[in-house]
Amino acid sequence: MTAEALSPELETIVANATAAAPAFAATSPKTRAQALVAVADALENAKASLVEIAMRETGLTEARLNGEVTRTAVQLRLFADTLVDGSYLDARIDYADPEFALGVRPDIRRTHIPVGPVINFSASNFPFAFSVMGGDSAAILAAGCPLIVKAHSGHPDLSDATAEVASAALTAAGMPAGTFQLIHGREAGVAVLKDPRVKAGAFTGSIGVGRLLADIAASRPAPIPFYGELGSVNPVFITADAIAERAADIASGYLVSVSGSAGQLCTKPGFAFIPTDSELPAAIQAAAGELPEHRLLDPRIARSFEERRQAIVSAPGVRPVIEGGIRFDEAGHGWATPTIVAVSLEDFRASKEALVEEAFGPLSILVETPAGTDLAALIPEFYEGNLTGTLHLSTIEGTGETANAAELRTLVDAISQQVGRVLFNGWSTGVAVTPAQQHGGPWPATTNDTSTSVGSSAIKRFLRPVAYQNAPAAFLPETLRDANPLGVPQAIAPAGESKTWGSAAQG
Amino acid sequence: MTAEALSPELETIVANATAAAPAFAATSPKTRAQALVAVADALENAKASLVEIAMRETGLTEARLNGEVTRTAVQLRLFADTLVDGSYLDARIDYADPEFALGVRPDIRRTHIPVGPVINFSASNFPFAFSVMGGDSAAILAAGCPLIVKAHSGHPDLSDATAEVASAALTAAGMPAGTFQLIHGREAGVAVLKDPRVKAGAFTGSIGVGRLLADIAASRPAPIPFYGELGSVNPVFITADAIAERAADIASGYLVSVSGSAGQLCTKPGFAFIPTDSELPAAIQAAAGELPEHRLLDPRIARSFEERRQAIVSAPGVRPVIEGGIRFDEAGHGWATPTIVAVSLEDFRASKEALVEEAFGPLSILVETPAGTDLAALIPEFYEGNLTGTLHLSTIEGTGETANAAELRTLVDAISQQVGRVLFNGWSTGVAVTPAQQHGGPWPATTNDTSTSVGSSAIKRFLRPVAYQNAPAAFLPETLRDANPLGVPQAIAPAGESKTWGSAAQG
Repeated sequence: MTAEALSPELETIVANATAAAPAFAATSPKTRAQALVAVADALENAKASLVEIAMRETGLTEARLNGEVTRTAVQLRLFADTLVDGSYLDARIDYADPEFALGVRPDIRRTHIPVGPVINFSASNFPFAFSVMGGDSAAILAAGCPLIVKAHSGHPDLSDATAEVASAALTAAGMPAGTFQLIHGREAGVAVLKDPRVKAGAFTGSIGVGRLLADIAASRPAPIPFYGELGSVNPVFITADAIAERAADIASGYLVSVSGSAGQLCTKPGFAFIPTDSELPAAIQAAAGELPEHRLLDPRIARSFEERRQAIVSAPGVRPVIEGGIRFDEAGHGWATPTIVAVSLEDFRASKEALVEEAFGPLSILVETPAGTDLAALIPEFYEGNLTGTLHLSTIEGTGETANAAELRTLVDAISQQVGRVLFNGWSTGVAVTPAQQHGGPWPATTNDTSTSVGSSAIKRFLRPVAYQNAPAAFLPETLRDANPLGVPQAIAPAGESKTWGSAAQG
Repeated sequence: MTAEALSPELETIVANATAAAPAFAATSPKTRAQALVAVADALENAKASLVEIAMRETGLTEARLNGEVTRTAVQLRLFADTLVDGSYLDARIDYADPEFALGVRPDIRRTHIPVGPVINFSASNFPFAFSVMGGDSAAILAAGCPLIVKAHSGHPDLSDATAEVASAALTAAGMPAGTFQLIHGREAGVAVLKDPRVKAGAFTGSIGVGRLLADIAASRPAPIPFYGELGSVNPVFITADAIAERAADIASGYLVSVSGSAGQLCTKPGFAFIPTDSELPAAIQAAAGELPEHRLLDPRIARSFEERRQAIVSAPGVRPVIEGGIRFDEAGHGWATPTIVAVSLEDFRASKEALVEEAFGPLSILVETPAGTDLAALIPEFYEGNLTGTLHLSTIEGTGETANAAELRTLVDAISQQVGRVLFNGWSTGVAVTPAQQHGGPWPATTNDTSTSVGSSAIKRFLRPVAYQNAPAAFLPETLRDANPLGVPQAIAPAGESKTWGSAAQG
């Protein structure tokens, strides 16, 4: 594969981003923080008009979309915090050491610089929080990388309107022209991803498309990192004790998590493992009441959901708990009510192929496991990687201690091996945007499980380390100078203290 | 591509590594640190016998090999230090916060866990420091990942002998069986790299082989990260002022850096840009004296070097400064003396294809640039990524300030964009093993320039983050507990302080 010539329009866009790279990289972290806050403010000020477009294009509710704008603004502010804090630079200073074990050690100082122009492919299901100015875009801009966003085809007007608001705010904040640009169309996105001037890619979407783009990024003449957040079924394990303790609470929490945003969330619990003959299915039916129908994001997603739903409900041994369904309107939009089914572990095993794949929409499967089942062994049997895994456990009355903690430890370990986030007595949807968050897990949950797309660590994906050896102060980045004018945390290894722990321990 | 069945022998090896993974991951960082120190001690104790084998198999000198064993031991101890320090875990604790901007924030805690079994392909040119128990192996073991090393075909007996020493030390230190295993043969290495139980690959070697293996890793049904350290030509820029200040010093330093280890180092300066009509070529001739011949690592490398050397010396406009040469003995080994050539910038440009590619051996090219040449523009014109870039500058007498610092800043910036390490008034060979070191640069210097293969950050390649949400203490890794029994650094975000800088700044 060689880079193809870009269309004149795309050539201008990539050339703009390339031209902006040095000036944008040279902005101070605090200046970029102010620009991100300006974008957050601008989006919040434009919320009413943006949400109106989003409702029309995505079918998501006003409450959900208003909340999503707030989340998007919080994400931008989180990265502003990250920039002001400065520890993301991992600045290290090793002073010269004439006594070093391998001979005179030079003065070596290391910080991180932006990788260059990045393309971000937006998601369908978060028209704000993982779209034009969503989490990935915020991380890319925070890192100091010119950003090209490929709009999702599901909300083109909203993408244009958001881009207009963001561009105005970035320009007013003094960011260079070419810092942020929007393109439409998958072919355009692929062409930009192949361009040698583009240095990384980010993506949120399906396993199929994610794999296609990851393969393109890896097979370029100069390969680049590609950070894809793909599919996940987020298994939940609910103990008999937990059901005995709080069946109604668990039932209602599960229903909210499965049906919120019409189940179109990458952290939707797709499976819940429960004991055979438990009262939970009945509690779920009792909690369901009259569930409203919800429009799915677009006709393609609706058709694909209905196909998966039919395959699941017609698999041998699958019984409806909540029937649910989908109807299509004249415009081709699908309107769904939640479907909950139950299946024995034996039948799940027999129909694994039909059942185990993600159903992107309001559907979840209760798997009934006989007493004595080795739950830890089910994780590698059924799943590759997942974003999350959840346990619902009970507490020993009066002590606050978890019942059967020693036995459950094996299950927790097995889940940890396969996910990015392990939850206890909660629900995986509604990902908190916070420094310790991890949103990413082994393939196919993501293309790169050593990174995260939510939380302040997400900035690291778009930075690379550079070391300076015996540099005169005039040539050092400010973050590495002794005077530390930006006040960033610096990890300092003084001369004469480079004797290692190992050699000290050995005397 | 699907995973093929392994030979019975390889199946046992991969099964052993897979079985060892949970137990090895569960060892405490300090226990692993002790094991690494034990390996370092054992290698140093066995130095005499190991170096004897290495001399025979690699043709490197006793002094160089003795130094390399010391370096290898220091690397192992550096990772022991890293483990004891604990900051590599980047442990973060965000306490629950009922006041959070997006609603109640759960308690989220994040640490890093080992990725699982890793294969490391050893290098030809560092039979200790980047081979069986070299830097990559030390980082993999430090991370807690079972290690399978593919021995380099250039030193099979040394690989076996080193493995025996290391295995005994690891076993005596209580590490689980299967923690470390050695295999021989490229086909075996490829088969292991394709196996779904193997979770990452490391490699030091040529661009061709590195690309082949990187493509295999990326195209697996479940892709894995592949950390290849490939080729680099490490351009050097020497100002007229620097030559006027210290021509003899620069000449002798350059010769040592080009000819040490017979130029078979990835950080060898392949090009030096010097002013037209400078006295440096004469100074280099004066410093050269009677240069001894040195055996190249193996006959294949020798033949490949001679082919590159012939292409370079016969390109139009290329003039010998030091003729050098190579002779082949009956065993097919090549014995080389250093070759230094000079070429005008104009002729370099005209023969770019023939000249710019790495010559792995004792050869370097002086490129003579007319006064007024925009040196910063030469970097992107001639090179993709490099491990290092170097400047030799002069000091304004009496001030300690660099001459022409403002002008040179553009050149430093251009170099930074394309390398992992920028050096001043020194030589790129002899990479210090120290926390701030960065050994890695943009493609094709490495497959992944957001990582390093030297320095304590190298451990990060074999870890992935996991977050725990609302976890009872009994299920938390020790590194994330409030009591902090291992005493690792924990970044704590208390409740009630999650208001962002952005919102504070806005009032």
